[in-house]
Amino acid sequence: MDPIYLNSVYTVKPKNLYRQAELSQWIAQIHQRAESFKPKDQQTDSDLIEKFFLRYGVKDAQISERYFECSDVFTGFSDHSDIYKITTSTPNGVDITERSRFFLNRSYEVLQKFYDVSTVQIRPDHLIHVTCTGYVSPSAAQKIVAHQNWHHSTDITHAYHMGCYASLPAIRLARGLVNTENLSVDVVHNEMCGLHMNPQLQTPEQMVVQTLFADGHAKYTVSKTKSKDLKNLKILAISEKVLPDSEMDMSWIPGPYGMQMSLSRNVPPKIKGELMSFSTDLFSKAELTNEQAMKSVFAIHPGGPKIIDAVQETLGLSANQIAESRRVLLQRGNMSSATLPHVWQEILLANYPLGTKMVSYAFGPGLTLFGAVFEIC
Amino acid sequence: MDPIYLNSVYTVKPKNLYRQAELSQWIAQIHQRAESFKPKDQQTDSDLIEKFFLRYGVKDAQISERYFECSDVFTGFSDHSDIYKITTSTPNGVDITERSRFFLNRSYEVLQKFYDVSTVQIRPDHLIHVTCTGYVSPSAAQKIVAHQNWHHSTDITHAYHMGCYASLPAIRLARGLVNTENLSVDVVHNEMCGLHMNPQLQTPEQMVVQTLFADGHAKYTVSKTKSKDLKNLKILAISEKVLPDSEMDMSWIPGPYGMQMSLSRNVPPKIKGELMSFSTDLFSKAELTNEQAMKSVFAIHPGGPKIIDAVQETLGLSANQIAESRRVLLQRGNMSSATLPHVWQEILLANYPLGTKMVSYAFGPGLTLFGAVFEIC
Repeated sequence: MDPIYLNSVYTVKPKNLYRQAELSQWIAQIHQRAESFKPKDQQTDSDLIEKFFLRYGVKDAQISERYFECSDVFTGFSDHSDIYKITTSTPNGVDITERSRFFLNRSYEVLQKFYDVSTVQIRPDHLIHVTCTGYVSPSAAQKIVAHQNWHHSTDITHAYHMGCYASLPAIRLARGLVNTENLSVDVVHNEMCGLHMNPQLQTPEQMVVQTLFADGHAKYTVSKTKSKDLKNLKILAISEKVLPDSEMDMSWIPGPYGMQMSLSRNVPPKIKGELMSFSTDLFSKAELTNEQAMKSVFAIHPGGPKIIDAVQETLGLSANQIAESRRVLLQRGNMSSATLPHVWQEILLANYPLGTKMVSYAFGPGLTLFGAVFEIC
Repeated sequence: MDPIYLNSVYTVKPKNLYRQAELSQWIAQIHQRAESFKPKDQQTDSDLIEKFFLRYGVKDAQISERYFECSDVFTGFSDHSDIYKITTSTPNGVDITERSRFFLNRSYEVLQKFYDVSTVQIRPDHLIHVTCTGYVSPSAAQKIVAHQNWHHSTDITHAYHMGCYASLPAIRLARGLVNTENLSVDVVHNEMCGLHMNPQLQTPEQMVVQTLFADGHAKYTVSKTKSKDLKNLKILAISEKVLPDSEMDMSWIPGPYGMQMSLSRNVPPKIKGELMSFSTDLFSKAELTNEQAMKSVFAIHPGGPKIIDAVQETLGLSANQIAESRRVLLQRGNMSSATLPHVWQEILLANYPLGTKMVSYAFGPGLTLFGAVFEIC
């Protein structure tokens, strides 16, 4: 079977860049204000909320900046806010319908940056649209393909609700489409985690989530054509495993005020427990010994600081081997499924010699472990 | 490239069977009761709601029965109701989180009917889980693959939020996976449209929607193996088109009380306007002339009575050629993406000679037209 390549990784930055300390403080303020609309005897004290955020929130040594599409930081919870109008009638902010509409509008703007529709251009044969933070039909992907300047028969797949690991199943689908009939498949990620905070929930878990996740957008192409101008990632192997007895450790479910996440402390140790045997299977699928594979550069989905630590410790990796994963977490936060493509982009821009293998991991609800091996070429 | 076959179509009936008249009357009662919790000057009169349902609702000549997983018809809006607890504190029924949890529990029960986990058995290499009516991670598909008696490495794809047409893109993905590495791919549909009614919306559009949609579950296998015991559908061609200037005609978006649909009267005429040229392209992809293709049996997604009429009139089909599509609508209603597999099952159970072509159409938000050609063999 012909080799399949991934290349042309592009990213679009969301509208607003915030320093972590500033953003976390603002989120704490939304929580304090939302709390003030609860009955007096059910309110959590403002000082306690601030302490919780300081204690449980992700520190700026680990995430220094995050991008949000939502500009509400500047509007002070007022009627001019898009999402976090924290008022008597909307003490949690706007409902999931308005958040979804915001997602649609903004993701359509992003798609217009990825695809110039002011002129007629070459278009992909298939567009796989990936998200777990905005479910609207028709989607931005359907809207752009229906644009009068699109001028190409492009099929669409929604690869939705697969959480942080979704880039790897999306590439698996793209590979199948390329092997069947499509010459070129584009995968587009739109993630806006910043739309899904519920400020009336005062739990340590939510304070981790709300200081960890961010917005991000990415696009790349999967095809049998090896680019001569750009570096490519040849797909060698993709593997997946759902861990037993772990369904309660992470979840993602719609709520009236956006999607709701749960996340337990058991995720890093459970990943540690499975990673070595999972990786041995993955490497052998890519026809690599463990020893050969351990010389690769590693693109680890930075689910959180402890996830990268867990992978590094279990596999005995050097700081250099995971430098891009840590850097993307530091500079961007966890952008859900859009994160790994940002890490790949960094790795392709760095000076790794052609022939270097890249091992990529991602984790999500299930618990699901995803792994892939690529060759930089 | 080797031919790819679809076979082993199984369906599971949801818990409760209701006659259309009885169910529509009950839904009208939920609306009347929900309305009574609005401020007096904003209430729609009970008689008017009943008249609206009688005027706009789908008649029992067109849909005689529908299945719902939800048993609330028997509990009288009380605290014992699962979804439609229409009370002062929940005048719209329970929120989207509780509806999603109900979906997860019930879909996991259905998956245990599709896959016996009481013993170790042969399992698929890949499971594509299809729905637009319940987004929960971990999903029922992930839960069953993690079951201690599953004993097989099965990959999972969530093909969510593609609406009524989702079976055809799911088969397109399955074909790619089979062409790449998976020996057998199962596609499983769980649809529970009956969980997504908002009884405080009194529009003719919602009365159509709430008397049209139903619950349904289906499963089938896609592989290179032609079954000798069962009839097969050889996949000849799959096509898709998003129509321009039609994004407002149908939509599907999460709301605080479940998913919310919009549906315009323009859908049937817009489909009529595009169907012939779309079909000519589809048939030629399957290496059939229009004349040859018109001798096929047609499996039309029965989006509503007028959709079947529109396809029949445009292509000049006989009543016999669309008999199974009308029968599934009559006996089951529109089960969203699970509907077409029910039509295919009926066609495979009927006595069409081997070699007969089956043309299948489905429609959804975009507006998106999907078509496929199969050969019964």
